Amino acid sequence: MSLAQFNLWVAEIRNDRRRGASELARRALELLAEAARTLPTMDALELWRDLLALTDDLSMARPSMAPIRNLLRRWRESSMPLAGADLVIARELAAERAEALIAASRRAVTECAVHAAKLLGPGRTVMTHSLSSTVAETCRLLKDDGLRMIVTESRPLGEGRQLAERFSAWRVPTTYITDAQMGLFVAQADAVLVGADGVLADGTVINKAGTYPLALAARDQGVPFHVCCESFKWREPDQPVPELEEMAPTELGMPDWPAVTVRNVYFDLTPARLVSAWIDETGVRWPSAKP
Amino acid sequence: MSLAQFNLWVAEIRNDRRRGASELARRALELLAEAARTLPTMDALELWRDLLALTDDLSMARPSMAPIRNLLRRWRESSMPLAGADLVIARELAAERAEALIAASRRAVTECAVHAAKLLGPGRTVMTHSLSSTVAETCRLLKDDGLRMIVTESRPLGEGRQLAERFSAWRVPTTYITDAQMGLFVAQADAVLVGADGVLADGTVINKAGTYPLALAARDQGVPFHVCCESFKWREPDQPVPELEEMAPTELGMPDWPAVTVRNVYFDLTPARLVSAWIDETGVRWPSAKP
Repeated sequence: MSLAQFNLWVAEIRNDRRRGASELARRALELLAEAARTLPTMDALELWRDLLALTDDLSMARPSMAPIRNLLRRWRESSMPLAGADLVIARELAAERAEALIAASRRAVTECAVHAAKLLGPGRTVMTHSLSSTVAETCRLLKDDGLRMIVTESRPLGEGRQLAERFSAWRVPTTYITDAQMGLFVAQADAVLVGADGVLADGTVINKAGTYPLALAARDQGVPFHVCCESFKWREPDQPVPELEEMAPTELGMPDWPAVTVRNVYFDLTPARLVSAWIDETGVRWPSAKP
Repeated sequence: MSLAQFNLWVAEIRNDRRRGASELARRALELLAEAARTLPTMDALELWRDLLALTDDLSMARPSMAPIRNLLRRWRESSMPLAGADLVIARELAAERAEALIAASRRAVTECAVHAAKLLGPGRTVMTHSLSSTVAETCRLLKDDGLRMIVTESRPLGEGRQLAERFSAWRVPTTYITDAQMGLFVAQADAVLVGADGVLADGTVINKAGTYPLALAARDQGVPFHVCCESFKWREPDQPVPELEEMAPTELGMPDWPAVTVRNVYFDLTPARLVSAWIDETGVRWPSAKP
């Protein structure tokens, strides 16, 4: 692979609007494994330096998505000794460690879902917003157990539509609404379950815009609001609040009118005080047990 | 005019998705005036009975829209003595009273806007949701006074787009966002100003779906949330909460998937405890002064 290929990969991660944070983190690790095996290089030290530069660029590509940064950091921590190894061995170990983290990330999604499904229980009506792999997996586990879903459209890209299509295939009775109707329908839910693109050390949730007003409406209507994501998505206390990513205004389909500025910020922040429980692969964390 | 024409008129009011509650109430009064002048009838008593039937049908056509019901009731109260009059005079007086109420309704919009503009003051950033004639008129009064606007898309029909086009023509700096971003952007506003399709006697606001989560976000961010509408929109204490109107699910543009039900409820209820001030043509009503 070449520097040009390298930059194309970073651009792929930066421009992806389809995949969530965990999926993109796994994709970043795949690219890292591929780079470890194929980067033209003199020795293990040079390989190590080039891979470090790639992890930096990949991490910076999606600042709102904590798992990309966290998984790449874990890879760095576990792969550091490779710098002094034989080049052939270093290539293989670096790639294998990236692949081990991909497997760990997949396992974490499954384990999150097991805990979330247990917390929700059978026969529930659950509301969600946007498309989360942990939420989708939780629903798969509960689909033959009387689950009913309420799904928001999730403008501008309509991830709720993808989710509704999946629920339809599973024959899970699903109510599909505009984002603007969330306040009306949350009262019909036994619980809200959302994923997260990242969680700050104090429990504040970074997730698709609309999550914060949904959490407010859930609180106002007395409906529990649960957040389900892998521990890779938690940020360290020393990591500042990331700048919330803004995508192309053209996604809103507006003409170019003088004096009108179209804004398309993808994420909002839901304060920890609105969260009933955080669920990760290790179990359920209640507000009183916050770090 | 004939019974067929009469039913067409009721259908026109029922199916209108473009005009707000006040505009439709004025349209209903126009139809009533036209009916008063042209209904084939034997005498004033028969005319009166036919007009009463028309007011009933028009009122029932849009149960969420209080001004239709309230203005038609005012017309009935002021026109009752016509039943005993000469037919020619009865026709003209019935029509003139309808037209007087149209003028009163227009005046009320203007007067609401004067009070709202005074309350907001110059140099403010104001956020709104959906399209209200009183809010639009308030913005027109403030447009050369440093006004900046934040406007939500307002799915499914996108009334926010019409409003943004108007603000663009006025050169009012306007930020246009998806409904899902309301929680992010309300913190940038000095105040939220929305209209209403109806207000319950306890101050609960019936307005376009999304108003309730916006009010919650405004409260959470410490931003005043004002409601500006003519007194015709207030319901009497004996009037129950109307069934919130639901429109065609096709407006959401979803395929017909098994197990998926598309819901398209146009209105939600914002409790009085979230409202900072109600503004009508008589002035500003603060929560402590609620009826």
